[in-house]
Formats: sequence, structure tokens, C-alpha cells
Amino acid sequence: MSVAEFYHGKRVVITGGVGFIGSNLALRLVDLGAEVMLIDSMLPAYGATLENIAPVRDRVQLNFSDVRDSHSLSYLVQEREVIFSLAGQISHSESMRDPMTDLEINCRSQLSLLECCRHNNPNVRVVFASTRQLYGRPRYLPVDEKHPLEPVDVNGINNLAAEMYYTLYHQVYGIPTVSLRLTNTYGPRMEVRNDKKGFSGIFIRNALEGKKIRIFGSGEQRRDFNFVDDVVEALLLAGAAPELDGEVFNLGHPTPRSLLEFVQALRQSIPVEYELVPFPAEAQAIDIGDYYGDFQKFHKASGWSPRVDLEQGLARTVEYYRAHGWPGS
Amino acid sequence: MSVAEFYHGKRVVITGGVGFIGSNLALRLVDLGAEVMLIDSMLPAYGATLENIAPVRDRVQLNFSDVRDSHSLSYLVQEREVIFSLAGQISHSESMRDPMTDLEINCRSQLSLLECCRHNNPNVRVVFASTRQLYGRPRYLPVDEKHPLEPVDVNGINNLAAEMYYTLYHQVYGIPTVSLRLTNTYGPRMEVRNDKKGFSGIFIRNALEGKKIRIFGSGEQRRDFNFVDDVVEALLLAGAAPELDGEVFNLGHPTPRSLLEFVQALRQSIPVEYELVPFPAEAQAIDIGDYYGDFQKFHKASGWSPRVDLEQGLARTVEYYRAHGWPGS
Repeated sequence: MSVAEFYHGKRVVITGGVGFIGSNLALRLVDLGAEVMLIDSMLPAYGATLENIAPVRDRVQLNFSDVRDSHSLSYLVQEREVIFSLAGQISHSESMRDPMTDLEINCRSQLSLLECCRHNNPNVRVVFASTRQLYGRPRYLPVDEKHPLEPVDVNGINNLAAEMYYTLYHQVYGIPTVSLRLTNTYGPRMEVRNDKKGFSGIFIRNALEGKKIRIFGSGEQRRDFNFVDDVVEALLLAGAAPELDGEVFNLGHPTPRSLLEFVQALRQSIPVEYELVPFPAEAQAIDIGDYYGDFQKFHKASGWSPRVDLEQGLARTVEYYRAHGWPGS
Repeated sequence: MSVAEFYHGKRVVITGGVGFIGSNLALRLVDLGAEVMLIDSMLPAYGATLENIAPVRDRVQLNFSDVRDSHSLSYLVQEREVIFSLAGQISHSESMRDPMTDLEINCRSQLSLLECCRHNNPNVRVVFASTRQLYGRPRYLPVDEKHPLEPVDVNGINNLAAEMYYTLYHQVYGIPTVSLRLTNTYGPRMEVRNDKKGFSGIFIRNALEGKKIRIFGSGEQRRDFNFVDDVVEALLLAGAAPELDGEVFNLGHPTPRSLLEFVQALRQSIPVEYELVPFPAEAQAIDIGDYYGDFQKFHKASGWSPRVDLEQGLARTVEYYRAHGWPGS
């Protein structure tokens, strides 16, 4: 069955549905004819803005609530067929400044969501947006799923625990869960206000505002960048394929790029100036150096590969923000 | 410096200090001339009983409080030189029945303790009692510290996250932490009331009460058993050796024994009858099969090896309960 057929008429819920990836997924699911509910706490600085879902605002059910609120969650998961668990605190530096909040959202709420499913809807398929952050500093490249799990910040540890809950609840209770370890995702609706959500959003905002981009270190650190439409496709595939149940998969891109190359690619769409500056101590302590993932396991299981290259993806991102403006613009 | 010299006059705090291992550690530390504070929530069925610390009751400072209470904890860690973090929910089956409580105690409270140290006493040495449970089902034996971490229950996942917080707070903030992965610990003051704290306590209680011991499965599952005095010695060594900071070590025993052999060893001290019964489904789902650990890393780093064999240890355990009675006796 194709993804389009699978989701047509499906009752789907997305936690963090008004945020960056959640809203892109929502738009696509509405397009496929799914019955979509979005759960979002609208926490300031977490990336949600109603502008993100403007094109589908009247075709989704929007439920403002926080995944930390397990009583609401118990009702929200009922009668749903697929849950995309995307709500999260994603800033690494913020997880060090306020680790207890990171734990509540990334660790406790995930276990709580699974408990809600176990008690109220044990057959619902659940796709968890995990992160490459749980590998820590790569011991080899590209990083595959067998790589040791050695997270270097609180965010990585909490996501690791969360991912393990998802796998466990499949093993012990048979709840159909699957986790995708996302890497650097970028694209329209990404958080560009907040300095704590990774460099790509900041770089793009600075370019849009004609400000100089500051690159920490030599700029030679490599990353694999996934355009959000490719990530949405991966999430849809994961949610539609029972043969992936209980598994964990890397996403990734076949062409890793350095930060300098990222800036060069961005320059094809918009004028960019940059400077190299030394790493601030705080960022250095939790930096992971080069990272790029091996996504062959997911490719073999689902046929997925990224379709959008960095130049195209950045062009579409810049186009989006030029058309819609950006928060603060 | 010897352990005895190191702890003489040291200001030490033990969380879970009235429980099984905590109380044995407390007795030894008082004996070494340390200034000992015990923190315990006295949660029913968690193993704490004042009988455990009767011999030193007037030579320790006893603070009744729960590690989930971070405001109290902030004060309790101040001016201490060594913290033994032993408070925990240790029942695997209970962690599946009530996973949120397991998370609060084993995961959230550990992060909270570290935050208290970071803000109020960043030079305090912290020894964390971790568990072999975070390895899951062994892929090879004996299990060393490089073995993949694949916990098979919520308790194992939460302990894994906790241990990673300890290592991280050393790496990022320089707090001197060290984790020991305990295996099956037994001895005087162990919890013998509660069916959920592992089989050794239940076996010993049944023997004391003249009841038949029920062994799940074939009885051939092997484990490594550490007598509590050996575990106390390991904790003391870990707390006294700055060169172990930031590290994680297995405990273990050079002679693993099957459950049937455990019963044979127990029979040398007390008459025992037993029967083999099939695994209940709940226990089977989270059973890890054979487990024994390689403790060479800790042996090389600290000189530690277990001194007490199973026959001696069980004899001393039975002797203790015969002299003191046991809860419910």
C-alpha cells in the first residue's frame, strides 16, 4: 500500500504539531486526506507559531495542551490510529541550563504518552522522532545504528531514555512503535528566532537580515542536512509500515557538508557574509565534532532516501521566509 | 591513603541510608570514624527499617526525607565531602507496573541531586550505585563495561539515564562522580519481606520460614552474587579514589552460580526444600537469562575483589536473621 492510500481517512495525531517538523507533516497529511489532530503547548521559544499551520487551520483539529499533562493526553490518544510523537525540548544548551524541564518534556512525557497508549489505545501506531544526539561524539563515520550510545548532554540522555521506552513498550506490550533518529533538519517553518536551536536556523535568519554569520571553530565540522520534506516522507513511511515495528533507524544524507559548505550553498540563494569565531566554552563542552549518519538500514527497510539536496532545500527555505517574513521581521 | 584513613572524620551522606546496602555502609563508616548523615524516605516496601541501623542509631544524623524533594536535598548536600547515592526503586516488576514512580525516583531525583551538587557543592565526591540491569540480556559472558546497553525494563532504562547524568556532570562540570554497576547483592539487612526485590531475599525468607522455595524455569540461570560487605568495600574504595572520577565499573564475582547452586549453598546453613515452576509471563518478558559480570576493570583500578564466597555469605545472612528475626517473623 502506498503512503497516500495508507493515510487517506486515517485518524492521526501529532504532538508538537504546530512546531517546525510537526506543521510540515500536518500540511502533508491534510493533503493526503488524513483526519489530523495537532497537540501543541505553544511554549514560547519552542518553535510553534500558528502561522506554520495557516494553510490548513480549518482542516485540522487543534488541541492546545502540554504533553506533560498526562490526564489530557489519556483522552487525546483514544481512537487515534497513528501518533507522531514530535513534541520536545530540542535545544542542547538549554538542556544544560535547565535540565529538569528537559527531563519532564523529553523523558517523563514520552513514558507518560506510552502509558496512555498502553491503558487506552494499545494498538495505535507510534512514530517517535528521536535524534542523532544520543550517539554523542562519533567514534567512526558514517554513524550507523550499532554505534555506541554516549550522549554528551542532558538532552541526548533524555532522548535516549525516551527512545528506549518506545522500543520496550513494543517488546513487552506489543504497542507498534518505531523511532527515527533525526539529524540536522532544515526548511520552511524552522525556528529562526531562537539562537539555541542549532546553527542552521541562526545562519538563515542572519542571512535574511543581512547580518554577518558567525561560525564557531574552523567551519570544517561536517553534518548531514535533511530537508524537512524528506523528513516528513520518512515519518510517513515509518508510520505506515508494520514491518518496522520495534525498530530504530537513522536518517541522514548521502552528501555530508561542512558548515562552510553550508554557507556556500546558502549563498546561492541569498548574499551571505561570515566570520570564524572561537567556540564559546559552554558550546565546546557539548559539541560533537563531525557527524554524519548511515541511513542504509532505513533505506533497505522502507526505500527512503533524501530527494532534496542542500542547494535546492536552502533555496526553498529562503523563498519561504521571503514570502512569509519571519518572526521579528 | 587507606580507606580507613580517608573516611576518618569525613562528612559523608548516604541516600537510602536506612535500606539494605545503605545501612551496611553506614555501620562500616561509623566504625571508620566518619561523620555520617543518612537520608531516607522510609517508603513502605522499599527496604528501610530502623532495625537496620540500630547499632549506630545514636552515632549518625538521620534525616527523613525523599530524594524527590529537591528543596530539602539542596540543603542536605551542603558541606558534605562524599555522597553515596543509593536511594532507588529497585524492583524490576514494580517499574513495569508503575513506571512513572520509577522514573521520578531513579531518573529525575538523580538529575536533581546532581543539580543540587552543581549549585551548592560542586566539589563533593559522589558514588552512584548503578546496576547490571542496564545491559539487558547478555550478548556474551562475562559482561564487561563495553557490552551494549540494552535494558529490558523501565527500571534498567531509568538507571541508565541516571548513570549517564553522573558521567556527564563529571565531564561538563568536573563534579567528581563514579558509578558502580551492582549485580545480585545479598546479606544481612536485605529486604526479605517483599517478593519484588529479586529471588535471593525471597529464597532466604522461605528457608527461614520453612516454606518451599519456588524457582522459575530450570534453575540453571546463572548469576554472580556479591555479599554486602564486599559491595560496601567497593563503594568505600570508589568514594576514596579521585583517579576513578567519571568512570563506570562493574562489580561481580569470580564464581557465578546457578539458582540451583544458590539453593544448595543455602542448604549448608538451613534446611531448604524447593520446586521448579514455569516462568510467569510477566517475569518472563523482562527476564535476562544468564548474567555474570567481568569486574577486572574495577579490580585493576582499585584492587577490589570479592572476599566472601556464597556459602560463607549465606551462612552469615542466615545467622543474622536467626539472631534478629525478620520483618513479619
